[in-house]
Amino acid sequence: MNHRLSGLLEPRSVALVGASDRSSWSTRINEALDVIGFDGQLFLVNPKGGTAHGTEVHRSVHDLPVVPDLAYVMVPSAAVLPAMRDVAAAGVKNAVVLSSGFAEMGEEGRAVQEELAELCRTHGMSVLGPNSLGYVNIAARTALKPFPPGEELRSGSVAIASQSGNVTIQLMNMARSFDVGLSFAVSTGNEMDVNLADVVDFLAQDAATSVIAVFAETFQDPSAFLAACRRARDADKLVVCLKVGRSEAAARAALAHTGSLVGNDAVIDAFLRAAGVVRVSSLEDLLVVADTFAHTGPVDGGLALLTLSGGTCDIVADLAEDLGLVLPDLTPGTVGELGALLPDFAVAHNPLDVTGAAVADAMLFGNALEVVARDPGIGIVVAAQEIDHQAENVAWGRDAVRHLSEVAAASGTPTILVNTTVRHLSPRVREIRRELGVPAVFGGVDRVLPAVHAIQGWTRDRHEVAPRHLPTLTLEAPPTGTWSEATCRPLLEQAGVPMVPGVVVPTAAEAARAAAGWDDPTAIKIVSDDILHKSDVGGVALGVASADVEERAARMLVDVRAALPDAAVQGLLVSPMRPDGVDLLVGVVREPGWGNVLAVGLGGIWAEVMQDVQRLALPAGPSEVEQALRRLRAWPLLEGARGTEPVDLGHLTDVIVRIADLSLALGEDLAAVEVNPLRVRGGVVEALDVAVVWSA
Amino acid sequence: MNHRLSGLLEPRSVALVGASDRSSWSTRINEALDVIGFDGQLFLVNPKGGTAHGTEVHRSVHDLPVVPDLAYVMVPSAAVLPAMRDVAAAGVKNAVVLSSGFAEMGEEGRAVQEELAELCRTHGMSVLGPNSLGYVNIAARTALKPFPPGEELRSGSVAIASQSGNVTIQLMNMARSFDVGLSFAVSTGNEMDVNLADVVDFLAQDAATSVIAVFAETFQDPSAFLAACRRARDADKLVVCLKVGRSEAAARAALAHTGSLVGNDAVIDAFLRAAGVVRVSSLEDLLVVADTFAHTGPVDGGLALLTLSGGTCDIVADLAEDLGLVLPDLTPGTVGELGALLPDFAVAHNPLDVTGAAVADAMLFGNALEVVARDPGIGIVVAAQEIDHQAENVAWGRDAVRHLSEVAAASGTPTILVNTTVRHLSPRVREIRRELGVPAVFGGVDRVLPAVHAIQGWTRDRHEVAPRHLPTLTLEAPPTGTWSEATCRPLLEQAGVPMVPGVVVPTAAEAARAAAGWDDPTAIKIVSDDILHKSDVGGVALGVASADVEERAARMLVDVRAALPDAAVQGLLVSPMRPDGVDLLVGVVREPGWGNVLAVGLGGIWAEVMQDVQRLALPAGPSEVEQALRRLRAWPLLEGARGTEPVDLGHLTDVIVRIADLSLALGEDLAAVEVNPLRVRGGVVEALDVAVVWSA
Repeated sequence: MNHRLSGLLEPRSVALVGASDRSSWSTRINEALDVIGFDGQLFLVNPKGGTAHGTEVHRSVHDLPVVPDLAYVMVPSAAVLPAMRDVAAAGVKNAVVLSSGFAEMGEEGRAVQEELAELCRTHGMSVLGPNSLGYVNIAARTALKPFPPGEELRSGSVAIASQSGNVTIQLMNMARSFDVGLSFAVSTGNEMDVNLADVVDFLAQDAATSVIAVFAETFQDPSAFLAACRRARDADKLVVCLKVGRSEAAARAALAHTGSLVGNDAVIDAFLRAAGVVRVSSLEDLLVVADTFAHTGPVDGGLALLTLSGGTCDIVADLAEDLGLVLPDLTPGTVGELGALLPDFAVAHNPLDVTGAAVADAMLFGNALEVVARDPGIGIVVAAQEIDHQAENVAWGRDAVRHLSEVAAASGTPTILVNTTVRHLSPRVREIRRELGVPAVFGGVDRVLPAVHAIQGWTRDRHEVAPRHLPTLTLEAPPTGTWSEATCRPLLEQAGVPMVPGVVVPTAAEAARAAAGWDDPTAIKIVSDDILHKSDVGGVALGVASADVEERAARMLVDVRAALPDAAVQGLLVSPMRPDGVDLLVGVVREPGWGNVLAVGLGGIWAEVMQDVQRLALPAGPSEVEQALRRLRAWPLLEGARGTEPVDLGHLTDVIVRIADLSLALGEDLAAVEVNPLRVRGGVVEALDVAVVWSA
Repeated sequence: MNHRLSGLLEPRSVALVGASDRSSWSTRINEALDVIGFDGQLFLVNPKGGTAHGTEVHRSVHDLPVVPDLAYVMVPSAAVLPAMRDVAAAGVKNAVVLSSGFAEMGEEGRAVQEELAELCRTHGMSVLGPNSLGYVNIAARTALKPFPPGEELRSGSVAIASQSGNVTIQLMNMARSFDVGLSFAVSTGNEMDVNLADVVDFLAQDAATSVIAVFAETFQDPSAFLAACRRARDADKLVVCLKVGRSEAAARAALAHTGSLVGNDAVIDAFLRAAGVVRVSSLEDLLVVADTFAHTGPVDGGLALLTLSGGTCDIVADLAEDLGLVLPDLTPGTVGELGALLPDFAVAHNPLDVTGAAVADAMLFGNALEVVARDPGIGIVVAAQEIDHQAENVAWGRDAVRHLSEVAAASGTPTILVNTTVRHLSPRVREIRRELGVPAVFGGVDRVLPAVHAIQGWTRDRHEVAPRHLPTLTLEAPPTGTWSEATCRPLLEQAGVPMVPGVVVPTAAEAARAAAGWDDPTAIKIVSDDILHKSDVGGVALGVASADVEERAARMLVDVRAALPDAAVQGLLVSPMRPDGVDLLVGVVREPGWGNVLAVGLGGIWAEVMQDVQRLALPAGPSEVEQALRRLRAWPLLEGARGTEPVDLGHLTDVIVRIADLSLALGEDLAAVEVNPLRVRGGVVEALDVAVVWSA
């Protein structure tokens, strides 16, 4: 592979700077390289010279016979800068800095780290760390991470990328504990130079890796991270991510409604989803999704689950219902074939209980699996039983697991075996799994079923949203502060968003004349870009009869001037009242570093109280918007539940896409745009109010 | 112990009926009894006589030197009845019937089972099964279940009671896999006689059991089961239950709203909660909650979590936020003491990262734990780290785990250690755990934190709701069919439930006269117990101006007669219209076998669309009702969010309790009562409509 991080992550020659028999890091790295079987060139460097780990120690990187691909720096923090100067001067282009004591320690450390960064930039070096535990490239048999003793590190296609060194160790220990095969594990530490985005980008092209498990505390460069994730998706690799820090996500105050609805974490959720990232909320799920995908790859089709326990079938049915995971009916052909195989009292449905008859006939489970895997509606088969226990302890179980594994290997449909619940792995079970080639996934049905569901969704949604053709806009005012409805109306018009008619008038008398142009009643609103919450200062009057318009408008002007004497009032906006409908809130917030995110939900008091909001990273097309609407709890109201008129869904999604495109066309100065309410009544979709907030 | 099931579940003498060297069941039961060290009297019985398992075989139970406490029957299904006749005639009072081929096989099997049941009733026998895998009473060293080979069955205080034999084995395997100590495990099979309720009742009094884990497919006798659970709670034992079959729960149609809101499964949820049962949705959670409680007992106070990884702190903080689990702030005294212990860069908050300094000072973790456990706000301490890995693989880790275990044992605050993620148990780790007495709970923080949260809630809520003083009612019509608002109004009055004023009148002219008694506008509804959905047939007119009442009332009578010519119309109900407020739906459904369950939520279209409903088993008092209201997503509306007037919560809960008490006073013929809407506006709480449905 030829990636800009190849030298860093696939070095053929390595200098261990700070090597010493007295350093436990040095000892452990040497052990790790030995255990993994590193077959490149290895040099030890220490200004003191002598020998370490039974090998000659060079006094400087300059003394080495070749310029190594990479320097692994594990000297005390105060010695890092001199050591790195030596490394850089020798022409080494890649380094891992294990040493801590930098930005993570506060202001002073941050200054030293900046000096280090400057040195590396000057010399064009790629650096992992500082304060990084390094990495293990299992496929390349390179261990530049002192991985702790314990179970064997099995080679496989799951890559781990984590900002936390401790979490990397937890994940590696869990993987080894449950026999999950790894291709790569890295801790990015302080991310002075190389960050998660760079690593994911590398792994997206790494031949040994089929799935990338990411633990993130923060994203240094969100758009680079998302781009790397999309590159992984394009290479048919799944990125699964545990992003922490949800509970500290600050709600933003850009606009009353959209701001509180688009929390920081929800924004991240929407962008990760759009980039094809499966987000999970535990380290176990992170590894189970990765392990499952490493066995299945993309899953195109329904899930069939086989077991030999009625109780497990019940558990699976409930779990599937909770997840919204459909267990498709088997075709009559499949049912017929199963009928011929299974005992009379068995029922050939999905999930399938092959019954205890599998104890008497060890081939039964595998034979049933073979039939189900051929069903045209089935895209993945999960065999859930006490596989490890049976293979280890009972003769029929061993035969059954062997047969199951053979059938799974020969099947064109991805097929995995899973213990019904999470289960300890005895040394004997590890052996049996290797010997029989058991396609076992860890985690039990309770974690594997959600993983399968996520993989199905990922497979279905892994298309790129086409770039949008954006409207051309003319701004009638400078893009600063807050624009209220009257100022925003031309924007909506240019974007093709239908609005309730509205006339801006300077006086109460002209308001009355304007209101005479339509049937009763009328809405009157104060026009002022200085007033965002008009109703709080008496600046909104709804349902005013035509006879009362002039008096009511006059009173409003007095009230508002009394309440906010400094606000610049441009006049009154007069509109006809509209019949009731379903009121939606459609807002877009621009999240610096990420992009624009759309929030859509019920408007009015329901938006905030019921928190029934869906979010979409932009750009998004009509199908994404429709899916978001269908995910709302209030969706039945749009469909016409409880006596409401069904909406024209095509028209509604078109209007929402236009609002989204408008937000994109408003450029980088935008903070937020909010249409609230967007009134929907059958085929009529109209913005009744709108505001734009600029970041400047 | 002296329980009516003592002879069945703690026998001192057992006859194995059907014993034979050729029967694998017989062989496995004998092995299991041998492994567990059964020290009571054991007799083998088989009509063929001879020897089996190296021991004499008696031809009949009559030939035994004593009447055994229990017969374990494992003959072919056709031979069960004759064998049981022999057993019964010999005066044996308890039997376990392993054999299958009864009710679970359909009609024919059901008939044989009924014959068997009759035999047992006649002889006053207690029978477990048929189609039961039997039980293991670990504390009494009695294994009447062929438990499969594998890890050691460790003695502890977790009891397992399951209807599914296969699930019992899964749970036992999981417990053995993760070193969870068991007191008891039973499969109740077909529950011809002894059912889950009986077993829980026994375990509630079993000295060796501190927590009861139940797997249920259906409850034969719900009220007996709930009573047994309450008995367990009274003995400070937690019952944790996985009840499957949620996805098949049929919504009931008794009343349009309440019926669809009170699904079968939600009813079970409410009743289990009221009886102190913690409900979970996976076998893993079932065992983790049980294992945790076995270590902690009731937990009265906040959770403190210690770890040595910042990443784990972030994960824990997010998880706690999702669960609504509060990690209380530590007191200044605790913070001060920790400050003296921990390195300068550590921050003394909860969750607490003791930092990597714990590697250099093996006592640090335990010392920090000791300080935190003394904090007055802390009721439980969880130490989350790589305990098993560290104890097995590194010297400081072993010292640290030993010290942690000593500190935990000496602490007055329940303290558990948990691997950060679920982890495999090597044989060496098992040894270390025994040697050091490590209070380790399995499952990782992702399962243990929810378990702790559930145990905290159980501890807080484990009071009995006081029996209610019910109103005395006079029914003015026979309790059959459906009663509409006019018929129900006297009931509400007798129960002290405030209603909007209403007058029933026979004619449109009298409607107009009644409406003259209050300000505009008026509501008119048709009065007919034959019409439940009045608005569907034009039987409701709202907001009618006084001038229009007579004409509108006359039209209603015509419209309804045209739509439903056979409906008996008693007249018109005329009421004043009320100002808008928050509309609640308050309904009660009587669930045969379980009791009455209250549903409360937003009324109108929101009830069904948003599914924002809470359910409470009755009786319930004001504090239970208040807690239910606070659990509604719409709760902020009642508190006065978004400009609504805050409700008088005391008055509202009082009215809801009165509706609940009314439903109880209506007795066993009630199917449902529904107040919809109950309009709430500040201090005003009024029923605007009500209906009662009777079961006959």
